[in-house]
Amino acid sequence: MTKELRVGLAGIGTVGAGTFDVLARNREEIMRRAGRAVRIEAVADINTERARQITAGRARVLDDAFALVADPEIDVIIELIGGYGIAKTLVLAAIAQGKHVVTANKALLALHGNEIFAKAREAGVTVAFEAAVAGGIPIIKAMREAMAANRIEWVAGIINGTTNFILSEMRDKGLPFAEVLKQAQALGYAEADPTFDIEGVDAGHKIAILSALAFGTPLQFEGAHIEGITKLESKDIRYAERLGYRIKLLGMTQRRSMGEGKEGLELRVHPTLIPAARLIASVEGAMNAVWVKGDAVGHTMYYGKGAGAEPTASAVIADLVDLARALDGPMEQRVPALAFQADQVRVLPVLPIESIESAYYLRIQVADEPGVLADITRILADQEISIDAVLQPEPAEGEAQTDIILLTHRCVEGHVKRAMASIQALTTVLAPLVMIRLEDLS
Amino acid sequence: MTKELRVGLAGIGTVGAGTFDVLARNREEIMRRAGRAVRIEAVADINTERARQITAGRARVLDDAFALVADPEIDVIIELIGGYGIAKTLVLAAIAQGKHVVTANKALLALHGNEIFAKAREAGVTVAFEAAVAGGIPIIKAMREAMAANRIEWVAGIINGTTNFILSEMRDKGLPFAEVLKQAQALGYAEADPTFDIEGVDAGHKIAILSALAFGTPLQFEGAHIEGITKLESKDIRYAERLGYRIKLLGMTQRRSMGEGKEGLELRVHPTLIPAARLIASVEGAMNAVWVKGDAVGHTMYYGKGAGAEPTASAVIADLVDLARALDGPMEQRVPALAFQADQVRVLPVLPIESIESAYYLRIQVADEPGVLADITRILADQEISIDAVLQPEPAEGEAQTDIILLTHRCVEGHVKRAMASIQALTTVLAPLVMIRLEDLS
Repeated sequence: MTKELRVGLAGIGTVGAGTFDVLARNREEIMRRAGRAVRIEAVADINTERARQITAGRARVLDDAFALVADPEIDVIIELIGGYGIAKTLVLAAIAQGKHVVTANKALLALHGNEIFAKAREAGVTVAFEAAVAGGIPIIKAMREAMAANRIEWVAGIINGTTNFILSEMRDKGLPFAEVLKQAQALGYAEADPTFDIEGVDAGHKIAILSALAFGTPLQFEGAHIEGITKLESKDIRYAERLGYRIKLLGMTQRRSMGEGKEGLELRVHPTLIPAARLIASVEGAMNAVWVKGDAVGHTMYYGKGAGAEPTASAVIADLVDLARALDGPMEQRVPALAFQADQVRVLPVLPIESIESAYYLRIQVADEPGVLADITRILADQEISIDAVLQPEPAEGEAQTDIILLTHRCVEGHVKRAMASIQALTTVLAPLVMIRLEDLS
Repeated sequence: MTKELRVGLAGIGTVGAGTFDVLARNREEIMRRAGRAVRIEAVADINTERARQITAGRARVLDDAFALVADPEIDVIIELIGGYGIAKTLVLAAIAQGKHVVTANKALLALHGNEIFAKAREAGVTVAFEAAVAGGIPIIKAMREAMAANRIEWVAGIINGTTNFILSEMRDKGLPFAEVLKQAQALGYAEADPTFDIEGVDAGHKIAILSALAFGTPLQFEGAHIEGITKLESKDIRYAERLGYRIKLLGMTQRRSMGEGKEGLELRVHPTLIPAARLIASVEGAMNAVWVKGDAVGHTMYYGKGAGAEPTASAVIADLVDLARALDGPMEQRVPALAFQADQVRVLPVLPIESIESAYYLRIQVADEPGVLADITRILADQEISIDAVLQPEPAEGEAQTDIILLTHRCVEGHVKRAMASIQALTTVLAPLVMIRLEDLS
């Protein structure tokens, strides 16, 4: 195993703390994947007291982010300060020092990305930014790498959780925007100053980044058309619903032929009616989703949590692991075939089906007699299987038999099999039982 | 730009032809992303006539795949032969010759992956297989790279399009399995011998691969519990529906604590009830979707076409671009910041909002008088805007005004703005018009 990747963390707010926690908690699995340890060597934050609480002696704490940049012990800087001021100076200083940068700062990249990436290229370092768009959803990786075969036609996304939460609430509860915004602030889904979210600026930063990745252009945020949701009335949400649509704040970018071989881009954020039947129309609350339409692959969708400490940390750390794998290691083995490094692959026994846990659907064809359901539920109780739902349709006209359908709570399959054998033996049971497993995927 | 990546294609059936076509069609964009040309140098197929038709003189045609392996002009072999026989021998021969391999062959990897990856490691070459699971969905990349921060809890997927198509049809049309299978075969959604699909074996191969990636184990297909959909009755689909569930053929793998610090795996494929409200329950027809639950990121979902010539080609070519970027290039710049190589980034003008095309929702508050709608539709017609739907709710009791809601077909926004100005000027229009854009994302 090569030497550890030494990381300096600038800004230990919500996402910074999440990154520190996840790296500590999953240290071993991350090492097994990366082929080397990924360690936060030092943390810089103006609130050194809070930083000390979170790091609890496991990393040096500094009050000056620029000291991280100067530190020869550090290979990579994670920038989680936010904004365009100090963050920009810091990122450029890190690049100048030959350090790689991982950032979640979409505003910085949308506005100054062209300059930053050019400097990084000159210095031969990477500026990674998976966390900048759609939190834990790996949309940057999908667009930069997975879509490489395609002429991308358009990208559309629900990429701001705050506004999607507000729109979901407005629809579900029929409340006006201002009232839902207050609730969202109380619940922590919207910031005290929510302007960037509700006016669509945050979504604009993100779609500007995705647009560049899709079409091979520089970042062109300044040309984007941006409308937020502040003027949206509940009335329009209701009318849209009656017509078969939902209203979402959509970021969209699309390539357009302008005739004579010329092309232009649409780059826009605005409330949008989407057919209710589309999968993306069902993305509710604080979840994010991005659609990418490629000429070869067709429609693909990526869905997950767009914000929050640990989902964002997941993206930050994925960038660190990419770096850890790329630096020093043999190139062909940058990404190990089975995700974990070959010497870290370990057998875990595959459990026999009787040992699995699931919920179960049972259909039992029975004589239409009193007491049958009681016999069955007694047998299930004896096997400690609890019942979630029972459906007993009326027997068809003139039929002396019917079906009993049971849904169980989660239990061990072996118990279900034993209960099924006992139920099958009842004289009132007229046909082989049907069993189908049930997963709620929660 | 470094020298081109020279590829040998073994097997030019549906996916092979798709790969050849997409590489040719998107040659320039792929080169702009990869930093070098990716060129199919030679194609081997027993049907040399068909191969010559597809390649049309743009690649050498051979009748012997092993001649590709021996060819010093070839860097990478794409294996699209399928099965475990010749395909295995070919892949091992390519590895022994120090050639990289890209394959879509899930059966081969599920059964012989441990041996193949070990040989590849010894030889210092890559065996890439994005196309082996879920076609155009980049689930291998997501799990190997994007999820690297997470302790993965479970993975569940609709990863066989044939069975998902059959189940969707059984539900929608209330038809029995055997009849829908026949239709699926007639439509080309099921093969003449559909055993591997309908018995769950194909899904088993795929979930075995995903399980290894999730948990850092070797491939353990032989332990999988596999049930297909052949015994599923329409009756159960209906009962499930009444209880609020849909039935899908799900591949699932889950880590389980066995007590005393020991762990085991669940690895299974079977028909499964899923709550109808879950996004994955709405994945219909031949589409695929995979859920990954990580401890940090939470739930993520990846959705797209699981099969077909060009979706699968998209994944094959993504693997080629990964190789093209990794070999020879400077390591830090393996994946260019903006997806395209820095010297290939080009401005595309961002269109002003008046030039975009969209459909539109218009709400117009009007006096409840005859002729108002006629005036409005005349103005829209004058701007060549055609109407998709009109909603005109009854005025509230005692009100002399009402709303007219219009959905337009797609048109240029400038025309809509002009029409809006004319409508606004009507004396029967009582309030500022509300306009919201509509996208069907098709």
